[in-house]
Amino acid sequence: MSAKPAVVIDLKFSRAAMETALSGAFQDREVIDLGDPANADRDLSTAAYAVLWKPEPTLFTRASGLSVLFSGGAGVDHVLTLPDLPDLPIVRFVDRSLTDRMSEWVVLQCLYHLRHMTTYQQQQRDKQWHELALQPEARDVTVGVMGLGVLGQDAVRKLKIMGFNVIGWSRRSKQVDGVETFDEDHIDQFLAQTDILVGLLPLTPETRGLFDSSLFSRLRQGGALGKPVFLNAGRGGSQVEADVITALQKGVLGGASLDVFEKEPLGTDSPLWTMENVVITPHSAAASDVRALFAHVEKQIARFEAGEPLQHVVDRRSGY
Amino acid sequence: MSAKPAVVIDLKFSRAAMETALSGAFQDREVIDLGDPANADRDLSTAAYAVLWKPEPTLFTRASGLSVLFSGGAGVDHVLTLPDLPDLPIVRFVDRSLTDRMSEWVVLQCLYHLRHMTTYQQQQRDKQWHELALQPEARDVTVGVMGLGVLGQDAVRKLKIMGFNVIGWSRRSKQVDGVETFDEDHIDQFLAQTDILVGLLPLTPETRGLFDSSLFSRLRQGGALGKPVFLNAGRGGSQVEADVITALQKGVLGGASLDVFEKEPLGTDSPLWTMENVVITPHSAAASDVRALFAHVEKQIARFEAGEPLQHVVDRRSGY
Ligand SMILES: NC(=O)c1ccc[n+]([C@@H]2O[C@H](COP(=O)([O-])OP(=O)(O)OC[C@H]3O[C@@H](n4cnc5c(N)ncnc54)[C@H](OP(=O)(O)O)[C@@H]3O)[C@@H](O)[C@H]2O)c1
Ligand SMILES: NC(=O)c1ccc[n+]([C@@H]2O[C@H](COP(=O)([O-])OP(=O)(O)OC[C@H]3O[C@@H](n4cnc5c(N)ncnc54)[C@H](OP(=O)(O)O)[C@@H]3O)[C@@H](O)[C@H]2O)c1
Repeated sequence: MSAKPAVVIDLKFSRAAMETALSGAFQDREVIDLGDPANADRDLSTAAYAVLWKPEPTLFTRASGLSVLFSGGAGVDHVLTLPDLPDLPIVRFVDRSLTDRMSEWVVLQCLYHLRHMTTYQQQQRDKQWHELALQPEARDVTVGVMGLGVLGQDAVRKLKIMGFNVIGWSRRSKQVDGVETFDEDHIDQFLAQTDILVGLLPLTPETRGLFDSSLFSRLRQGGALGKPVFLNAGRGGSQVEADVITALQKGVLGGASLDVFEKEPLGTDSPLWTMENVVITPHSAAASDVRALFAHVEKQIARFEAGEPLQHVVDRRSGY
Repeated sequence: MSAKPAVVIDLKFSRAAMETALSGAFQDREVIDLGDPANADRDLSTAAYAVLWKPEPTLFTRASGLSVLFSGGAGVDHVLTLPDLPDLPIVRFVDRSLTDRMSEWVVLQCLYHLRHMTTYQQQQRDKQWHELALQPEARDVTVGVMGLGVLGQDAVRKLKIMGFNVIGWSRRSKQVDGVETFDEDHIDQFLAQTDILVGLLPLTPETRGLFDSSLFSRLRQGGALGKPVFLNAGRGGSQVEADVITALQKGVLGGASLDVFEKEPLGTDSPLWTMENVVITPHSAAASDVRALFAHVEKQIARFEAGEPLQHVVDRRSGY
């Protein structure tokens, strides 16, 4: 056993991906992988670091010597609500690959709605050759991105390059090149200009249930797409799903692309699966790459052990 | 009537769009719109300029005083093959909006295949929540763009920003930032690295039938998408459709997005309509905006009348 403190891993990810990733990680210290049944009763008191995604409820009692917690995902709502959470720094996962993949999803879904793919795919099923009369280009459409953090800022930059008119909203006011931004207090001005709304917010007490009927009714009607479109790849808890459904049914919304849901997996009884112009993806917009996660954790542990400040530490008061 | 020579318009576009666009165009000269039945027997001998898309066969005999021909689209294959085509400069349509819209289509289709949207949409229809195990990101996939002209160069730039590894091929060798390029003679090296092939070529004697079984068999097999994908938004005459179908059936190709076809509209008997992982759009990737077309023609006429050289003149020998 090396002199360096151990890391305990409690990630409910696919085992195959985990094992491949672990084979090359944390070479300089002991790793206790709780996904391995052999470790069920292991002494965890030597571990200084824990990497978590939906951990065992007993983890914090067993691992009594922890110094830093690492979230297995970019979001930390699932960590902050854990019972018996110790008062330790929580480092969230920030990664180039995750960011790039989220922007792929956002740009894909915005272009999908801009280019009326639902209609063209229906026409294809009907073997109908018909060019739509109304075909706005990206610059005719305003994409409003809620959340201008690591993910939001990359998405707005790429949406802008694809030609969209882009505006953004975040808690504190932000400067982003070529993008008009609005702070918390100016949400109404932001919504009134938005044709495609993109949710890239963390789940916090403030953002829970934010995407509701009232908010949808304040989006721009009669923009270049006719009706506003709602995209969410932040957290499902930020949307009131019953309100999304009603807004779609009543034509307050003209379409949606949803990667996250109040309850995941989305139940087979949800009307969303079969609604017109709704795209469902199974929380796959930007999966955490386990190898990249371990590289990120190794880097932060190295900083910590060298006495440097940790990066991407969660602010417990704001909840992200 | 003004002293400036008239322009004759023979565009088989939607009448509504034509009339709106014409109402604000060519204010300084007479316009003879052959789409208006009142002009059926008009004397065309005063016209110096013709704007064409599938013109009447008698046009060139009737309009005997032409100095410049303007193509109503970016492609000129339909002009160069007209009977009795006079030996006059032919200006093709180049336009920011058309270019942007083509890149929207190309990026959308590349992301669609990268992100396995066909599979996710099938799962949605089956109300199945299932995250795919194999989810490469853009940088794992090489997009090979054939044709590095106005459209190809804009597309490669945007594909690159979306994270794809991008390579390009054109007749004469080209320098494009961050993109490895290949000339006519090095097509095999180009194909051997390509996971998503994007056709943005004009239709010429050299490019006719270029996308055939032999070419498909030289694309990279076993890249990050498993099998190569074929996109074409140049001209349908460049593809051997029977070979596209066979390649898809035999698994030489894993998917396709096609905007152009050998014969348009695509016949309802074509198997392409219903093939797995094939996206069909009805030559709508980048429709000519008639207002932008007239603005472009006005600008070129102004240059011509001021004794300046015309821009975007077609080289009849190369056919584009
Ligand atoms: N679907 C997926 O596959 C997937 C993958 C990864 C992440 N996610 C989700 O995406 C979220 C965002 O990730 P990120 O890395 O961009 O987070 P981040 O860097 O922490 O950024 C969060 C952004 O949201 C803003 N915000 C937070 N609370 C707000 C409020 N009450 N009102 C207005 N704005 C508020 C923040 O404003 P300030 O700038 O003023 O702080 C910030 O701009 C994650 O929390 C996670 O839940 C989903
Ligand atoms: N689907 C739609 O809605 C739509 C809309 C607009 C245009 N289009 C089509 O797109 C085509 C391309 O438009 P563009 O404006 O980009 O044209 P462009 O600027 O003339 O560029 C054509 C490109 O193709 C290359 N090329 C031509 N013949 C070749 C050959 N035999 N071998 C290798 N490369 C060859 C040229 O090589 P060099 O650089 O060496 O000359 C050039 O890079 C148009 O001709 C039109 O048919 C389709």
